[in-house]
Amino acid sequence: MFEAPYLLFLGDVPDALAAKMARGIYDWRPEAAAGQLRMKNCKADLGIKDMTVQEAAAAGVKTLVVGVVNRGGIISESWLSILVEALEAGLDIASGLHNLLRDEPVLVEAAKKYGRTLHDVRVPSIKYPIANGKKRTGKRCLAVGTDCSVGKMYTALAMDREMKKRGMKSTFRATGQTGILIEGNGVPLDAVVADFMAGSIEWLTPNNDPDHWDIVEGQGSLFHASYSGVTMALVHGAQPDALILCHEPTRETMRGLPDYTLPTLEELRDTALPLARRVNPDCKVVAVSVNTQHMDEDKALAYLKNVEERMGIPAVDPFRQGAGRLVEALS
Amino acid sequence: MFEAPYLLFLGDVPDALAAKMARGIYDWRPEAAAGQLRMKNCKADLGIKDMTVQEAAAAGVKTLVVGVVNRGGIISESWLSILVEALEAGLDIASGLHNLLRDEPVLVEAAKKYGRTLHDVRVPSIKYPIANGKKRTGKRCLAVGTDCSVGKMYTALAMDREMKKRGMKSTFRATGQTGILIEGNGVPLDAVVADFMAGSIEWLTPNNDPDHWDIVEGQGSLFHASYSGVTMALVHGAQPDALILCHEPTRETMRGLPDYTLPTLEELRDTALPLARRVNPDCKVVAVSVNTQHMDEDKALAYLKNVEERMGIPAVDPFRQGAGRLVEALS
Repeated sequence: MFEAPYLLFLGDVPDALAAKMARGIYDWRPEAAAGQLRMKNCKADLGIKDMTVQEAAAAGVKTLVVGVVNRGGIISESWLSILVEALEAGLDIASGLHNLLRDEPVLVEAAKKYGRTLHDVRVPSIKYPIANGKKRTGKRCLAVGTDCSVGKMYTALAMDREMKKRGMKSTFRATGQTGILIEGNGVPLDAVVADFMAGSIEWLTPNNDPDHWDIVEGQGSLFHASYSGVTMALVHGAQPDALILCHEPTRETMRGLPDYTLPTLEELRDTALPLARRVNPDCKVVAVSVNTQHMDEDKALAYLKNVEERMGIPAVDPFRQGAGRLVEALS
Repeated sequence: MFEAPYLLFLGDVPDALAAKMARGIYDWRPEAAAGQLRMKNCKADLGIKDMTVQEAAAAGVKTLVVGVVNRGGIISESWLSILVEALEAGLDIASGLHNLLRDEPVLVEAAKKYGRTLHDVRVPSIKYPIANGKKRTGKRCLAVGTDCSVGKMYTALAMDREMKKRGMKSTFRATGQTGILIEGNGVPLDAVVADFMAGSIEWLTPNNDPDHWDIVEGQGSLFHASYSGVTMALVHGAQPDALILCHEPTRETMRGLPDYTLPTLEELRDTALPLARRVNPDCKVVAVSVNTQHMDEDKALAYLKNVEERMGIPAVDPFRQGAGRLVEALS
């Protein structure tokens, strides 16, 4: 979709958190992050080389990535002259902001003038097909969660990295804007029109070598009243061979839904597996990935041990322990 | 959304089937169908009063409804002069065609000139909220199917009509273009952006009197690989108190998916009910609605009796037997 290496644009963000998308790109694809561009007053710093647009162009950078989030997801006026300069210097621009690059006349005009491309990763750029449910070659692993934001993307990225390290054939398949910015392509599933959701995921995970794994980023949760339809389309569109259950044990209510408690891991397993087997009768729940960031080490390890004993499959915090055992659970 | 009475525009369709949307409107809301407008060569006839645009305007018609389907869903050039005449005469226009009224410059211009509105019911006309899952007042019944096109809309319309006849408070809630054309409003769910699907259904079925029933039109099937996400959003967005299971017993494979067989009614019940109880713990599966059009009377009645005995709830073909027992199952 868009090309590395990147110049990570941090703008004038007030703190490090506002640069979390850029941080994600640097954490997961350091080789793609040629440098950062920080405006005066920028309070974030990835600790990589500072570059001007001209320096980036000279260094072979292909794309300036707007790696920040701000209230309302707006493209600040103060950024525009730098973004235009980047287009003039021969860079494309990619952005995950809610407000679109394509809605800024000055950027549209400059992109046209200099023959560059504006990539708004929050909105679909192609017309996806309707899903046909046909069996595809290759293997697919999908992360499903008891809730939103429990570590599904982290789990998928960590597994993909570990598999590549082991010489296995794998591809991270991004389904949300941060994942797309990291990978350089993917499907912004939450912005796809209802009828084409499952089809977009079939398109994202096509036929492949028999020993190739697509590691598909999950979205939402089958138990989340706002987004369960999105998750359902992933379960049927991805045609998974393996499900990884993702959970955050200290969360008391569903994200954004104060009236709802989280399901148990067993409920998630017993709901997701029969649905997945509708499209792939061989699907298995292979492991549990637990986000234990709010537990101390002793408590975290005790929790993981308990889950393993209860459920009879590996339970791992990939941040704390690495993704090795999750990857091993695939075979 | 748009106002009755209607002039049903049949255009120059080659057969009665092509006028099936108009037929649906006339069957379900005869009081709204003031007349039909048939061009020369039109091979369909609803058996109601033929009217010119001028006669319709004089009779108080508010909206010309394009009640036809054709290959590609296009707006024929030969229709345009009549549609412009309707706008000039003070009628709005509503259409469920794939191609949009708003994409025809001559119609846009005429609507502007005469202060009329073009209603494209296939695309959302408002910005729906994200679902919040909060408990709403009033009651809701949702039709869910073993497959697409098994009679969910018919079941909902027949129940709503029967309830009104009995003096019960009920509203048919349309979620597809034919239903919207019949009711005059609704949500074209298959065209809603993923993140807003469940929210659109919450919006469609708001707080209401404690003894009021929304009879919500179903879409797709939880077992249909192409559209299951849409159905899931309905199950969570509608917050149903009652589910009606819909089925067509002679169908051998899922609509559009030749590799997939239909689930059993028991599988549908055991899948849909736990999902619905996530948002409404009191939800019950109250009845089965069977489309027996491809069975003779003896076979149909034997099938219905068998389902009742197996499942312990009423099993009815509302077309053959009326919707009375489905309505009684709600209480």
